[in-house]
Amino acid sequence: MRARITLLTDFGTADGYVAAMKGVMAEIAPEAIFDDAGHDLPQGDLRRAAWSLSRYWDRYPPGTVHLVVVDPGVGTDRRPLALEADGRFVVAPDNGVVSRILDAAERWRAVELGGDLFPDRRSATFHGRDLFAPAAARIADGSDLEALGAPIEEPVRLEEPIPARGGDRIGGEVLVVDRFGNLITNVPASELPPGAVVRIGGRELPLRSTYGAVAPGTLLALVNSSDRLEVAVRDGSAARRLDAGPGTEVEVALSSG
Amino acid sequence: MRARITLLTDFGTADGYVAAMKGVMAEIAPEAIFDDAGHDLPQGDLRRAAWSLSRYWDRYPPGTVHLVVVDPGVGTDRRPLALEADGRFVVAPDNGVVSRILDAAERWRAVELGGDLFPDRRSATFHGRDLFAPAAARIADGSDLEALGAPIEEPVRLEEPIPARGGDRIGGEVLVVDRFGNLITNVPASELPPGAVVRIGGRELPLRSTYGAVAPGTLLALVNSSDRLEVAVRDGSAARRLDAGPGTEVEVALSSG
Amino acid sequence: MRARITLLTDFGTADGYVAAMKGVMAEIAPEAIFDDAGHDLPQGDLRRAAWSLSRYWDRYPPGTVHLVVVDPGVGTDRRPLALEADGRFVVAPDNGVVSRILDAAERWRAVELGGDLFPDRRSATFHGRDLFAPAAARIADGSDLEALGAPIEEPVRLEEPIPARGGDRIGGEVLVVDRFGNLITNVPASELPPGAVVRIGGRELPLRSTYGAVAPGTLLALVNSSDRLEVAVRDGSAARRLDAGPGTEVEVALSSG
Repeated sequence: MRARITLLTDFGTADGYVAAMKGVMAEIAPEAIFDDAGHDLPQGDLRRAAWSLSRYWDRYPPGTVHLVVVDPGVGTDRRPLALEADGRFVVAPDNGVVSRILDAAERWRAVELGGDLFPDRRSATFHGRDLFAPAAARIADGSDLEALGAPIEEPVRLEEPIPARGGDRIGGEVLVVDRFGNLITNVPASELPPGAVVRIGGRELPLRSTYGAVAPGTLLALVNSSDRLEVAVRDGSAARRLDAGPGTEVEVALSSG
Repeated sequence: MRARITLLTDFGTADGYVAAMKGVMAEIAPEAIFDDAGHDLPQGDLRRAAWSLSRYWDRYPPGTVHLVVVDPGVGTDRRPLALEADGRFVVAPDNGVVSRILDAAERWRAVELGGDLFPDRRSATFHGRDLFAPAAARIADGSDLEALGAPIEEPVRLEEPIPARGGDRIGGEVLVVDRFGNLITNVPASELPPGAVVRIGGRELPLRSTYGAVAPGTLLALVNSSDRLEVAVRDGSAARRLDAGPGTEVEVALSSG
Repeated sequence: MRARITLLTDFGTADGYVAAMKGVMAEIAPEAIFDDAGHDLPQGDLRRAAWSLSRYWDRYPPGTVHLVVVDPGVGTDRRPLALEADGRFVVAPDNGVVSRILDAAERWRAVELGGDLFPDRRSATFHGRDLFAPAAARIADGSDLEALGAPIEEPVRLEEPIPARGGDRIGGEVLVVDRFGNLITNVPASELPPGAVVRIGGRELPLRSTYGAVAPGTLLALVNSSDRLEVAVRDGSAARRLDAGPGTEVEVALSSG
């Protein structure tokens, strides 16, 4: 079967950087298919990148290689990483973008890309093309992870605020705002009993099961497709409506008391 | 031959939603090729989506599957649709995005996605991933349309203003503005005799055969690549120049009288 | 092996123009893989297009077909071009977008697309779909370049300002600003001895080997991944910081005198 490699970057596509990576991979793995995940991530936004990746990495079948280049630390001593998690592979800088995969996977192993296979590691400015893309293509072409570098025991993880639980309340916060202005919080669905009430920006919102349960333009709280508490406006932007963003506090009252 | 699936959405690509759909399809149809049509449609703009789709659906060879997810009604009772038209397939919400295909195709048949094949139809927020993508992949993998649900006799159609014809004049309007600021109208090329004069925004424009027929920065009217009357500025934006958009009136005078 | 065709345009992807080109190519070369290079080039910006293309054309393996449609002259008498350079193919308007390839390739040959193979050449408004895409697909499908048209001896080249050399100084200028706000200049790396000092916008910058050599937010000069002098801000935009863009003067002092 033909190898499939996905690409997620903050490079945009007007400068040819992404195509240069694809070209390098096509040279090494001529039969590979490239699926663009996205190239318009906010620049250097590791948290958004980690979220985006978490939404698709395990939807793809085992054997898929996910190439992620959001790399504010290029040219510093951050390590280049290759990861295998539940049969899928990720090649990325070791800067926390794989945090959610480490949390979610049943088993994983990681290596630091290195050695003679990557003579261009010294290239100062474009590791995406000279280091990460060749590594991804080699994995797609059948290379063992172990052949690419030495094991890493503890890849870097992004710190994520943990919801505060006390009495009948959960104190959480907004983690990420998506393109639609939906506010994705750090409160997991598993902690949301039916009937919970959600408070944000001085408002109190009932928990609904679907956008369609309210009229267009109405605020609501719901469990999203990643099993998180989300605050949204049907056919609108909750971020704009509430002037909210990452860090905005959200409170869940578990009982009607 | 390998199946080809195109994707058109208003999801953007920074949040991983599109990649999640691709992953789900790759799991079901591992050999499929995904061609991005576009993911930056204005949010919920069904008319623009219908236009965009009309430009490419039948340029692809028979057997192609077109996945379209522009779905302001997700979570309401709008039906999920699979369509076969002149040998190509479309999977989309039944909200009018296929209107132009229904008008243009020589023959078509449609079904409402349902039944045991789609246990996730109840998923409240992400039908793109949990319903439309699996359906598209199953069709690409060889499923009969009939196996996916019950026939629909009359898919939803967008209403489109019909040009008013009277005497030597046609009264039309702008339907869509494209990225270049070109104004695409509801006046079909077949009603435009050579020598017609086009009036819009207080101006009178000659009908030209090509952008190159006028100097850069000049307004012109022409028949576009979809056989519609279009008003454009060579190397510029007619929408900005005329402060025009969907609904702006355009008049065609058929004779010089 | 399956043919690979890359696409670079300024069409955006909301209007279905790019998908129409892919569909036309899929009809002619059903097994082809399409790699998007980018579709969000600034409209009609031939210099940016030429730069973008220069970054990836020869990273792809021989046999790849690069389709480039940035075409402010559509509908004028500019020639349609097919080029073979060091084993890769380019199909594009003959407006200078291939300039950097002509400079860089060891050998090249070009033809003007024409003849009975392209009856739609007269189509006034969408050469991308009706002329360039079919030509690219035919090459991917194995057509000889000679079968597509008559030789062109001198494709159009963009003029590029040549750095002024005098005494211990080089006077150059900014050519292109990329998505990150990095300023790419016309000064080649080969003319930059270690220890050179770079002056731009009233500032004097040391030449560094990598972004990581300075603190975040700091201006620096370095040799970029295309072997050009570049002025950048680590984790920021040099274009904004210096209010600089194409044409901004940059001076290199070769000695510390």
